[in-house]
Amino acid sequence: MNCLEERILKDGVVKPGNVLKVDSFLNHQMDVALLDEMGKEFKRRFADKTITKILTIEASGIAIACSAARYFNNVPVVFAKKSKSINIDGDMYVATVESFTHKNVNQVVVSKRYLNEGDHVLIIDDFLANGCALQGLISIAESAGAKVEGIGIAVEKGFQIGGKVIRNMGYHLESLAIVDSMDDQTSTINLRDQD
Amino acid sequence: MNCLEERILKDGVVKPGNVLKVDSFLNHQMDVALLDEMGKEFKRRFADKTITKILTIEASGIAIACSAARYFNNVPVVFAKKSKSINIDGDMYVATVESFTHKNVNQVVVSKRYLNEGDHVLIIDDFLANGCALQGLISIAESAGAKVEGIGIAVEKGFQIGGKVIRNMGYHLESLAIVDSMDDQTSTINLRDQD
Repeated sequence: MNCLEERILKDGVVKPGNVLKVDSFLNHQMDVALLDEMGKEFKRRFADKTITKILTIEASGIAIACSAARYFNNVPVVFAKKSKSINIDGDMYVATVESFTHKNVNQVVVSKRYLNEGDHVLIIDDFLANGCALQGLISIAESAGAKVEGIGIAVEKGFQIGGKVIRNMGYHLESLAIVDSMDDQTSTINLRDQD
Repeated sequence: MNCLEERILKDGVVKPGNVLKVDSFLNHQMDVALLDEMGKEFKRRFADKTITKILTIEASGIAIACSAARYFNNVPVVFAKKSKSINIDGDMYVATVESFTHKNVNQVVVSKRYLNEGDHVLIIDDFLANGCALQGLISIAESAGAKVEGIGIAVEKGFQIGGKVIRNMGYHLESLAIVDSMDDQTSTINLRDQD
């Protein structure tokens, strides 16, 4: 059992509607020592891949991606932005992403300056549920002509469709923790055995 | 001249309307080695302070705050969120913040679980212009009964009012780079001498 799995069982909170709150250590308050361990684990799982860039999405993916980058020779981290900012040039890749958490639809953008043909991309994100955000990032990377070498997720909701869809598309997807089921009545979280 | 100042002069791009684009290394694509140097420099400038928590705001502040936390004994990083998420409990501190970049007004929230009386807070953010975001973070920290020990900014626009206002309020504010003026016609950036 890795450090993230242990932490989810210790501090994760199950809320009604299959919501798993990890905001005491991952996506509101962040434990940087844990983030470092997670970065090291991503390196172990993608040790055979040559990565030139890490792609993530604001906001919760950023810290995880930066921690991972330290273990991949300090490659640049690019984070997709959720709305058009006047500080981004007009020339960008765009994907449309539906948020399970926020119940809305966002345009997700990455400047064409920062993803290129020839890039070998590791995509990192905090949660994988229905896979919409991830498919947006994949679409952006492939629009750039970059190769998606792998996808690293902190917490996969194994009972939702996203992981299966992405793996069926042939991507090398690694999730540090996979929640197979949870119950807010009994406060139980069942993690898939990955050892 | 520190590493951030050097990088701004090398790769910063001046756009009309006093916009300084640092998105090739700081707030869209991120150079994690630079972030690490910035974290080290914040530690040097706040070496005499005992910090129990770092407070920042999504999204661009997160990577800088996490890099800094490594130099402050891995204290937890809390990032304020820009809109109410269904994944945050109702019990939170709220501030209203106007964004110069996005020309809009946001509610900024921090869960009451993650800031407490007795916390000694270092506030970190990427940009300081008119100071609205920063005043929101200060307000949140003080609502919690926490002590703001210092404020670390990556890039201060020295020709806007924010820095002066915050220093006049008595806060220990350190900006790694202070832009005194810039000109998009000549692509010049003048940094305040801090040596």
